[in-house]
Amino acid sequence: MQTDHLLKQVSFIKEIDKLKYIQRKTKLFNSDRQENDAEHSWHLAMMTIVLAEHSDKPIDILKVLKMVLIHDIVEIDAGDTFLYDVAKNHTNTDEELLAAKRIFGLLPTAQAEEFIAIWKEFEDGITEEAKFAKSMDRFEPLLQNTSNNGGTWLEFNVPYQKVYDKKKAIKNGSTTIWNYAENLINESVDKGILKK
Amino acid sequence: MQTDHLLKQVSFIKEIDKLKYIQRKTKLFNSDRQENDAEHSWHLAMMTIVLAEHSDKPIDILKVLKMVLIHDIVEIDAGDTFLYDVAKNHTNTDEELLAAKRIFGLLPTAQAEEFIAIWKEFEDGITEEAKFAKSMDRFEPLLQNTSNNGGTWLEFNVPYQKVYDKKKAIKNGSTTIWNYAENLINESVDKGILKK
Repeated sequence: MQTDHLLKQVSFIKEIDKLKYIQRKTKLFNSDRQENDAEHSWHLAMMTIVLAEHSDKPIDILKVLKMVLIHDIVEIDAGDTFLYDVAKNHTNTDEELLAAKRIFGLLPTAQAEEFIAIWKEFEDGITEEAKFAKSMDRFEPLLQNTSNNGGTWLEFNVPYQKVYDKKKAIKNGSTTIWNYAENLINESVDKGILKK
Repeated sequence: MQTDHLLKQVSFIKEIDKLKYIQRKTKLFNSDRQENDAEHSWHLAMMTIVLAEHSDKPIDILKVLKMVLIHDIVEIDAGDTFLYDVAKNHTNTDEELLAAKRIFGLLPTAQAEEFIAIWKEFEDGITEEAKFAKSMDRFEPLLQNTSNNGGTWLEFNVPYQKVYDKKKAIKNGSTTIWNYAENLINESVDKGILKK
């Protein structure tokens, strides 16, 4: 019984290795190499630890860490959707729900249910933890694009207003980080790496 | 003052992007592609969340997560040392301490001190949290090598006893996981992917 429990966990641990092959659109800092989802998830976890103090509301840091570590695992089946994709909504697709059930379903039942619930909580973005996790998810590519001379904004011709509207979610987690981020966005227009 | 604080944190967040370029010897599961330190750190964090229940002693999961997320950041300056390297000791070199001071030193002072202390606690391996974190760090490449038909054991001609001695650290964190791991090691000898 105990062994069966551990075997299920090991099969999950092996399966999620595939996250290292899911390429994002965004590039690493000062680089032409695309970031993968495992690297991205690690970076968000580090940002959560470093920046948690700027959350406007008290948050359970362990829960935020769980959210950012698992938030993209569904992309193993569903693939990465670009934030500014015009044809496909980024969040909560049927495809992603199926993926969550299959992949987290490799775990022992209680743990599978816990992980699916945490993933849904992140997607819904209502709790303080989900708001902060989402602000990290928006802030990392903003830092990357401003370090990469416009990065995916220029590459995919994303206009200022679209960037501003998407990035504004940072404000739901932290006013301090949003003030900094808003400034970066406006400076990017001045620098010509983001078009109004 | 508040802005200066955040600016320091952002410079740290940008600097640690370099962890994504530090290649380990070990390959991804069922793959020929080497794993990098950021991917490895993410995987250990996931394993911590999934396997924490098997710790022999009560542990502070948030602290273990911080340990595994930051444990390899010093390698940005000091490089990755192979676990079975014969010329160089794996842990706690002067080079790594200098790296810790430089990289964590980018953060605001109190946070820099906290991160250096957590990194040292991991390296010392004395607390229950450090023991469990180290057991995750030993367990992941064991799973990779057994999935990769011997992987780095065959590639670098590492004998059974050396593997056994290094992997035994898993027991300090979890008897349950060690029992499973010990079995995997012995099976590997039977399969001819680990030489006695």
